[in-house]
Amino acid sequence: MAERRPLALITFDVDDTLYSTTDFVRRARENSLKAMLAAGLDLSLEQARAELAEVVSEFTSNDEHHFDRLLQRIPRERLGGINPAILIAAGVAAYKDTVVHSLAPYEDVQEGIKRLHERGFRLGVASHGLTVKQAEKLVRLRILQYLDKHALFFNEQLGMSKSNPKFFLRAAETLGLKPEQCLHVGDRPDRDVDPANAAGWITVLNRRSGRYHEMVGDTPPAYTIHNFWDLQELVERDFVPVRADPSAAPA
Amino acid sequence: MAERRPLALITFDVDDTLYSTTDFVRRARENSLKAMLAAGLDLSLEQARAELAEVVSEFTSNDEHHFDRLLQRIPRERLGGINPAILIAAGVAAYKDTVVHSLAPYEDVQEGIKRLHERGFRLGVASHGLTVKQAEKLVRLRILQYLDKHALFFNEQLGMSKSNPKFFLRAAETLGLKPEQCLHVGDRPDRDVDPANAAGWITVLNRRSGRYHEMVGDTPPAYTIHNFWDLQELVERDFVPVRADPSAAPA
Repeated sequence: MAERRPLALITFDVDDTLYSTTDFVRRARENSLKAMLAAGLDLSLEQARAELAEVVSEFTSNDEHHFDRLLQRIPRERLGGINPAILIAAGVAAYKDTVVHSLAPYEDVQEGIKRLHERGFRLGVASHGLTVKQAEKLVRLRILQYLDKHALFFNEQLGMSKSNPKFFLRAAETLGLKPEQCLHVGDRPDRDVDPANAAGWITVLNRRSGRYHEMVGDTPPAYTIHNFWDLQELVERDFVPVRADPSAAPA
Repeated sequence: MAERRPLALITFDVDDTLYSTTDFVRRARENSLKAMLAAGLDLSLEQARAELAEVVSEFTSNDEHHFDRLLQRIPRERLGGINPAILIAAGVAAYKDTVVHSLAPYEDVQEGIKRLHERGFRLGVASHGLTVKQAEKLVRLRILQYLDKHALFFNEQLGMSKSNPKFFLRAAETLGLKPEQCLHVGDRPDRDVDPANAAGWITVLNRRSGRYHEMVGDTPPAYTIHNFWDLQELVERDFVPVRADPSAAPA
């Protein structure tokens, strides 16, 4: 049996790693469109879906005016004589309801993270997106108690994209850790595997679901997993938790 | 018994008329601050309340960065070593949870509106605020089915403050109605009673609760009520519903 290597940090990507963003967003948008139709929007569900998909593709998923834009793009008579603010509000309310009631981790994530935490591994997050929006997901996934409060890395706060290897170099440096003792788990070859590899981190590709399931990156991950039981197994087989040199830790 | 006068429209203010905005906001802010404290914010609940009250007073209640500003104003060590994004997200999540679970009309409002609708009165809304935010309240209060879809008036859409009598003149004109056959119900002497009086509307001051409970306006309302049973009674005693001349109605 090979000797287990020291591991000082495990970071997790958020979207499609800790929860099924793809499934969640599909459900939230579907609920919103159905609410807008119920409020009087005169489109078929298929038409509304197609129009919203175009809006998201043209303005990105973080745009805050999806429903406004949807209504602007369609012929005015399709509003069914309803004040557009009411149609937008029906969509917004249904979306928020879905966030509050349905945003939940993959079924094995909470237990997997809890166990790694109990085994003594230091856990964190490396996330790309709107900072408070990403942080709200962590709150709703109910995993914050297992994460090191100094190991939450958001690309906006670091002033760089997560696709830049410096993101991972800076994260390790902030905690006074060697990159080769840090491991990152994510679903995107371009934002998780390639840049973390380039920074000298150990990489785990989460091949579970999501939009990037078929994407091929420039460099292979050190490991591929399909769920958090796989992750558990490889970490406990190949690694032993180490704490950083206290003299190198930040104040 | 005096003859009942014709009434073509009843509009309602939203905040502190259809639901207790004052109570709701107090509860939502309290839930948010408690969540931020539980997430590690190192203040007493009293300190946090006082700081947030100042933020709201300095930046208005519609500012979208209350929790960010609260954290900016306090000494950095009060963040308890927690990433501010997590503290803000804890507050935001608790606020949204409260909106989804606790935004409900005064107990007599839904029944009162339903009965006025059944008696044949045309009902609408005259609201001041952020349009979609106000519209979302109507969605959540579950009263839209009793309101005339052409009679929803939002100050941003009309391009003027609700404290301007033109707001009410324009609302009546839009529907082809005489101002003296329109009645407005609201809690604010300055934004509900005075401008609607000046526009020739019949006014009802809702003296139920809220921040403006003690405010005195320039002109007296035609009626004062304390709940929607009072409203019911005065409307059925003094008025009879009339439909507008169809030739004057908008397309």
